[in-house]
Amino acid sequence: MQMPYVTTRILRFGDCDISGTAYFPSYLNILNNVNEEFWEVLGWPWHDTIWKERWGTPTVHLSCDFSAPSFFGEELTFEVRVLRVGRSSVTLAHEISCNSKKRWSSTQVLAASDLDKHCSIPWPADVHAALTALLPAAGTAD
Amino acid sequence: MQMPYVTTRILRFGDCDISGTAYFPSYLNILNNVNEEFWEVLGWPWHDTIWKERWGTPTVHLSCDFSAPSFFGEELTFEVRVLRVGRSSVTLAHEISCNSKKRWSSTQVLAASDLDKHCSIPWPADVHAALTALLPAAGTAD
Amino acid sequence: MQMPYVTTRILRFGDCDISGTAYFPSYLNILNNVNEEFWEVLGWPWHDTIWKERWGTPTVHLSCDFSAPSFFGEELTFEVRVLRVGRSSVTLAHEISCNSKKRWSSTQVLAASDLDKHCSIPWPADVHAALTALLPAAGTAD
Amino acid sequence: MQMPYVTTRILRFGDCDISGTAYFPSYLNILNNVNEEFWEVLGWPWHDTIWKERWGTPTVHLSCDFSAPSFFGEELTFEVRVLRVGRSSVTLAHEISCNSKKRWSSTQVLAASDLDKHCSIPWPADVHAALTALLPAAGTAD
Repeated sequence: MQMPYVTTRILRFGDCDISGTAYFPSYLNILNNVNEEFWEVLGWPWHDTIWKERWGTPTVHLSCDFSAPSFFGEELTFEVRVLRVGRSSVTLAHEISCNSKKRWSSTQVLAASDLDKHCSIPWPADVHAALTALLPAAGTAD
Repeated sequence: MQMPYVTTRILRFGDCDISGTAYFPSYLNILNNVNEEFWEVLGWPWHDTIWKERWGTPTVHLSCDFSAPSFFGEELTFEVRVLRVGRSSVTLAHEISCNSKKRWSSTQVLAASDLDKHCSIPWPADVHAALTALLPAAGTAD
Repeated sequence: MQMPYVTTRILRFGDCDISGTAYFPSYLNILNNVNEEFWEVLGWPWHDTIWKERWGTPTVHLSCDFSAPSFFGEELTFEVRVLRVGRSSVTLAHEISCNSKKRWSSTQVLAASDLDKHCSIPWPADVHAALTALLPAAGTAD
Repeated sequence: MQMPYVTTRILRFGDCDISGTAYFPSYLNILNNVNEEFWEVLGWPWHDTIWKERWGTPTVHLSCDFSAPSFFGEELTFEVRVLRVGRSSVTLAHEISCNSKKRWSSTQVLAASDLDKHCSIPWPADVHAALTALLPAAGTAD
């Protein structure tokens, strides 16, 4: 996987509100969908880690700036970057654009979590290594 | 209206994911629902401002910290506070708890927006006055 | 509980689409929410049966007629009736109106289901008795 | 376009409930998404008909049979067939499977509708012709 990880999503009818632009909670459903794809390409699809290994990556922090509206039917480009890797967390930066014009951005912290005990756990060693390999040269893994 | 504005929501089956806890985009749908109630009680229900006056209050910034999971069937308490009132924006703080235990919090900036031109507009004078009246004593309206 | 079971829901911003009327999948999310309330009032809240007893009531059949649109901000009245009780299923009829004007209706079959094995199970005897008691006089329980 | 129109969707994390299988309202959101793609391929993308021509295709009837559960992460195949074309309606049949095993099916009636007046309208002549061309040999257009 190369950074940024790039993928696209069409803004569907069901994602839009009365104004004809994205309903912001639907934006976050799409973002979660993009994260799901990111983990699948990375090699740890959520349906495997959740079903077989009983851990997940719930969101513990989320920050978003919505700078310009997106309209029903537009194709949005999502760029995902790994900003920081902790012992049991990862910070992702998302840049969302349409035809190279910025629409919104997000910083999101995911934490490795035991699905049955609902508490954070350290990343498995191979996951930590894979995430760390995606850091920019100047980045630091704990 | 007194600060904080307090209301409750039950975490429904459809709001929860495989882990049995809240799916975070559903949390934000509930938050938007709470904001809708806040504006209705304040005297400007969205269905009136949108249908009749053609303005709305889209979210331009959102920051959330999810500190503890909420489980299917729990009753959540939402406390809404007005932190800052600008010429065309308002900053809201949300504290969400269950049985007095903190679950998550959010800071959200809404902007008054022309629904047809999709651009920000100044608050109508009476809306600005009503929001300003909810500021804490030390707060400042622009 | 008396038949029909009656409750209300306000059609929220997040439930509406570009046309300003209910997005039909959101209608069904609201319907599921009403069913959740029905089971809670009946004495078997889903969060108990799912968490503690490991059975649920997935939908196996659904039929809907949408006869008139509902608009953002309207209060909808839901009437729920039990039409038929089987060994492991129940048929519910829903009539949804606004100010006594019909908006849509639904017939829905729920099946008692083992949550781990994903197969149907007979109703627990007390659940079967409680559902049967809600049948109209001419109704028949298997 | 050939009948049936075939497309696929992955069942995402956000589409699943506590049981790890599809939440049925999310199934219908996905179905609507598939219909949106169908109309785009047919030549009348909803974002054009809604934005420029002010008509849409709301659902007036829906019937679904959910015969087997679908699990998080599975790829579902949707087959769409045109069953009947009326003056202002079209009946679609959907068959949804996974690895050739049936999961659910739906019959859905869409009605051409004026978005501002919220009333049904006849199909534009070219739309009627395009839909009629998709009918099976034995099918009948009004």
